[in-house]
Formats: sequence, C-alpha cells, structure tokens
Amino acid sequence: MVRSELHQGLEGVTVAETSCSRVDGEAGELLIGGVPVEALAANATYEESVFLLFEDRLPTADELADFRADLATRRDIHADVRAVLRRAAEEEASAMDALRMGTAAATLGTEDCSQTATARRVVAVFPTIVATYWRYRQGEEPIDPRTDLGHAANYLYMLTGEEPNEADVRGLETYLNTVIDHGVNASTFTARTVVSTESDLVSAATAAVGSLKGPLHGGAPGPVLDMLRTVHERGDPEAYVREKLAAGERLMGFGHRVYRVRDPRAAVLSSAAERLYAASGDDDFFETVRAFESVAVDALAEHSTDRRLETNVEFYTAALLDGIGIPQALFTATFGVSRVAGWMAHCREQRTDNRLVRPVSRYVGETDRTWTPVGDR
Amino acid sequence: MVRSELHQGLEGVTVAETSCSRVDGEAGELLIGGVPVEALAANATYEESVFLLFEDRLPTADELADFRADLATRRDIHADVRAVLRRAAEEEASAMDALRMGTAAATLGTEDCSQTATARRVVAVFPTIVATYWRYRQGEEPIDPRTDLGHAANYLYMLTGEEPNEADVRGLETYLNTVIDHGVNASTFTARTVVSTESDLVSAATAAVGSLKGPLHGGAPGPVLDMLRTVHERGDPEAYVREKLAAGERLMGFGHRVYRVRDPRAAVLSSAAERLYAASGDDDFFETVRAFESVAVDALAEHSTDRRLETNVEFYTAALLDGIGIPQALFTATFGVSRVAGWMAHCREQRTDNRLVRPVSRYVGETDRTWTPVGDR
Repeated sequence: MVRSELHQGLEGVTVAETSCSRVDGEAGELLIGGVPVEALAANATYEESVFLLFEDRLPTADELADFRADLATRRDIHADVRAVLRRAAEEEASAMDALRMGTAAATLGTEDCSQTATARRVVAVFPTIVATYWRYRQGEEPIDPRTDLGHAANYLYMLTGEEPNEADVRGLETYLNTVIDHGVNASTFTARTVVSTESDLVSAATAAVGSLKGPLHGGAPGPVLDMLRTVHERGDPEAYVREKLAAGERLMGFGHRVYRVRDPRAAVLSSAAERLYAASGDDDFFETVRAFESVAVDALAEHSTDRRLETNVEFYTAALLDGIGIPQALFTATFGVSRVAGWMAHCREQRTDNRLVRPVSRYVGETDRTWTPVGDR
Repeated sequence: MVRSELHQGLEGVTVAETSCSRVDGEAGELLIGGVPVEALAANATYEESVFLLFEDRLPTADELADFRADLATRRDIHADVRAVLRRAAEEEASAMDALRMGTAAATLGTEDCSQTATARRVVAVFPTIVATYWRYRQGEEPIDPRTDLGHAANYLYMLTGEEPNEADVRGLETYLNTVIDHGVNASTFTARTVVSTESDLVSAATAAVGSLKGPLHGGAPGPVLDMLRTVHERGDPEAYVREKLAAGERLMGFGHRVYRVRDPRAAVLSSAAERLYAASGDDDFFETVRAFESVAVDALAEHSTDRRLETNVEFYTAALLDGIGIPQALFTATFGVSRVAGWMAHCREQRTDNRLVRPVSRYVGETDRTWTPVGDR
C-alpha cells in the first residue's frame, strides 16, 4: 500500500478559486475585491466593502444608500437570543463564545430565508450580538441599534450609548475594511467546508466563528495590547525585547504563515492609528508602539536565522482598536464583525462551483482488537 | 508563476492521522477504535463505543458503569437554551438548526470546563437538545432526562415519555455504534479545522453540526424513507427503479465517495433492521426494503457504466430508524447524536499533534480595479 503524503495543515494546498481577495505573501500585497487594500481601507465605508465582496463591483451612490438602509433594518435580535447572551455574560463566557451562541440562532425572528437575505442578516447582526453581550457583561442593559447610523458607527453606539466621533468611526471603518477578507484562512475555509455539504449560511458563519475564536487564528490582538501596555509603562522597548528573546519567548504581533515581508495590513492600520492618536491629541502611547515595532523587527532579524519575522496585522490592530475605545475583550469578536462579510462572499463562491470537501485520513491505530463482552474483560 | 493543482474537494488528500476509525473503501471494511464495525455495532452499548473512542480501549465493567453514570449526570440543558429551542420549534426551524443553536450554548449552566468534561458534556446533551426541540415541535412540553436509563434508552424516552422496549433500544444502540466515526468526513474535518486554531470543543461540535446538516453529508436518510414508502405503497420495486433511471433521476441510498463495494455499515444496519422488524411481528415493509435493494443494485450495475453504485449506510438507516420510531425529521439529528463522539475523539487527536489548517486559494478576480469615490461612479 502506498503511503500518501500527510498534509496536516494543508500548507500550499490550493483548495478554492476566489475573487474575494488576492494575498501575495512574497510581495506583501493584498487586493480585496480587486482593489488594493490601502485604497479600500482608508476610503470606503464598511458597507461599501461588503457590497464589493457580495457583488464583485463597487456600488453607485444609490446602490450604496439602498444597501446601507437594508442592512440597517436587519440589526435586531430576538428576545430569546438576548436572554442567552445575558446568561453567557453572567457566566463570564468569552465574547467569542457569546458570538457563537448568537450567530447559531441569528435567524430566529426573521422571515426571509433566501440566500441574499441570510447573508445580509448575518453581517448586519454581528455588532448587535457582540454589543448586547458586552452591555450585559458590564452589568448594563443592551442598547437597541439605530437605523440612522452606519454599520461601524452603530456598533460603537451600541457599545457605549453615545454617538461616536468621526475620527473613531473612520478608524473603525478602516479596520473593518482591512481585515474583511484574506484568502482561505482557517475560518473562511471552515465556512466553505460547511457549505460544501449544501448546508446553510448561518451554519457556515457559526462554524467560522468557532475557528476564529482560536488564538492561532483570531486570538492574538488582545495579548499584543497587554505587551504594548507593559512596554509603555516600563519605557524601555529595547530592554523588553532583549529579555523576551533571551528567555526564548515569542514576541506577539510578528510573523505570519503567508507573509514573508511586512503584512500590508500592518501599514494600513499603522497609518490609521497614527491619524487617530493625532486627532485625539494624545499620541504618547502610539510613540511607544512605533518605537517598539522598530526595535522588535531589528532584534527579530538578528535573532531568528531561519525566517524573517515581520510586523503582522495584529500588532497595529491592538493599537488602533484600543485607540478607538473597543474593549480588549472584544478584539477578536470585532475581527469577526468584519470578517463575516468575507465568509458570506466565499460561501456564495463555494455554492456556485461546489464540490463536497471530503479528505482522507491515515489510520495509525490498532488493527487486531477483538470484541470481548464487558464481563470477560 | 506556477499554477498549482486545485484540490477543491480534497479527494485523496491525507489531512490527518487517526486511531478512531479505519475506512477501507476498496475492501468494504470499517474498524472503529480497532474493532470491526460488525462486532462493535451489534454488541456494544453506545457508552462502550464512546469510551473506546475516547480512551482507545474497551472499558472494564467498573469503568463502563462509572462512565455511563457520569454521562447521565450531564444531560440537563439550561432554561434559556430551552427557550431558544422552543422558539426554533415554533418557527418550524429544522432539527439540525435547533441542534446547532443548542450545541452552541451547550455549556451554559455547567461549571467544569476541562477538556474531558466538555467532551462528555457535548456527547451527553445532544439527545436532550434534539428531544426538547421535538417535543416543542409537537406542541408538547419537553421531558426531563432520566439518569437511570442508558444513553440510547433515555433518548427514546425523552422523545415519547414512555420507557422504550428492549428491541428498539438494541436497534438504536446498533445504529449509534455503526455511524459513530468514519474517517475525516466533512463534519469531522470541520471539527478538526476548528480546533486546529486552538479553539474549543463546543465550537468544534457546533461547527460540525453545521456540516452534517448539509444533504451531501448527513441529509439523505429522510428522502430514502420517502422513496421506500412510495415503493411499498405501489408494490412494484422493479417498475419504480426502471422509471427513475429512465428519467435520469438518482436513486437515494446508493453510492458513496469512499466505498467502491457495499458499505459495510449497510450490512450491519440491514441485520439490525431485520431483527427489529421480526421482533415487531410486522416485517411487511422490511420485505419491500430488501426486495428494492436487490432490484436497485442490479439495475444500477446495468445502468451506470463508469462506477458501481452500491447500497450505502443511509439506505438501511432509513428502514432501521423508522422501525425504532425515530421521526423522519430527526434522522440527520440522530446521526449527529452518534457522530458527536467521533468529533470529540478526533478533536483530541488534533490537539495532541496540532498544525493550524491554513490552505491557499487561487485568485481569479479583477486585478486592475482602482478606487473611485462613490460620488464619481
């Protein structure tokens, strides 16, 4: 019997064709719906990026207004789902656990279960699920979504009950646009695998939330922030980096499976964070972040001989989201608030040209175990 | 740039090593935890099979008693989850939608969140979720689980409120043992992908439910039963088969991605169904099922020139579960009630020797789209 090669992490295995995004890890370039991430992230509203992924073109002004209004009508969650989120918050479940629970039941109380409606519903409701959970977690009542605010602004509004300022909204739009899609990462591939069985979009989104929850995928911006705060308090980035590397520890926020150069999203988020901190008039923390990056990249280049570790998307995600006022406990869930649109777009592609995902395993267990009744064991 | 091969369905791609089951599609043989499916299915209780997968050995009498008692204590679901299931039933969501919602929130109200406890909790609670949903769907109040009944017997009890007879329990145990694991099928692979990010077991199980929901994976035994009932009413299997094939339609319950010969599980379930219908004293329907299989296999051999289509697991699943009294609307969910143990066992393997699942995609979209402000479009 031929022993076939084991592709445990599916590295380099091409599993899908897509028009959602092109990730060029060698050149450090990212196209989202054909548009360079730098241009899209800094200029588009999140709704515009979602439309781009869903329709494979940029909307006209009228189309965008309609799309935005339509998404806004799909933000409410059912009272029974709210009760589950309250319970999750009381039990101190994580935001991603709550998002999984809320997504799983996201269509309760909705009537139109067409593909289009469901994809829009799932995208529209993510901020409500996260914010509802968070309000309960803070011991506060949830704040109903407003239909007159854009997707990003309404998310911030539901978290605090206050209308957000323009700089924060722009910062969040930029973040949401930047991470909206990125090839077939683990969560996107999970979503595609689910719909490959001809299952539905809610099941796919719920499954993808579960993948995104894992620290190897969506879980590092929180720890990055802890690290940056420590460095900021201590005030000596070089000493910190030296100590960590000497102790054989990893520095959070550097290195990526795909990118061999600086993650293009790091540049986009770095500029966005710079603008945001400048607008706030207090860029002391951001100075530390910048200095730390510079020191760390140099030290990592000296330290690791096998491969270059460059700044990844999570590094500036931490600085940007913290600057906007997103609680650290919601960083990964906020990643989900963006990425869900990519999941839905990939699911549509998978449906259009489907093949059931059904790989094979290699058996390494016992082969001569015989059955004995329990009394004879 | 080298154009790499596209492995859309991952056919023949080995993604994992496993001790859970060995599927030999050429020989038509299946080992579960090293034990031939024929011996395990007909003799073990479901708890024994779960222990086998979890511990990679058969339990002693004492161990089995402890394990069974422990699972039995983990059957209750939280009132807030029950409310979601009631709502799902009122909205006529499918059993698999309800199972996804219930699984997503399966740890609400539980305290021990160790790996072992969570794996057991998830396995223990599946029947309660499905039965609770079903009772509401019938306009009845749910029936609390009983700790003095085994896993299979308690599932039947919660569906009807009556203690099931021995033949039905044995039939259900046999079914649950037969389909408990089967290599890295779509749902199992989904679960493994989720935990490859270092996410948790509840997320993995919820994701896998979403995959199993799809008709290309777990969804065919229901339609098989419709077909068998039609044939039974009409009384002429040969004419039915001839008409279907002439019309270019598929016959449900035949053919499998992996098996080139008769699915060994079909034989196991066929014997179990035969015993069950004989015990009931009314094997008229089962006579039709047998006759239909024989006619269909011959006709398919004549009709399809490219590959043999043999009886698959779903064919006798339909006959067996219907004979036991499992409602047709719960066939796929009952598949999940069994397979969840395989998912949990695979997740443990994935954790033990983990590598993040992160394949690549091939970009086929636009490459020269430039950003224009919405007002200029």
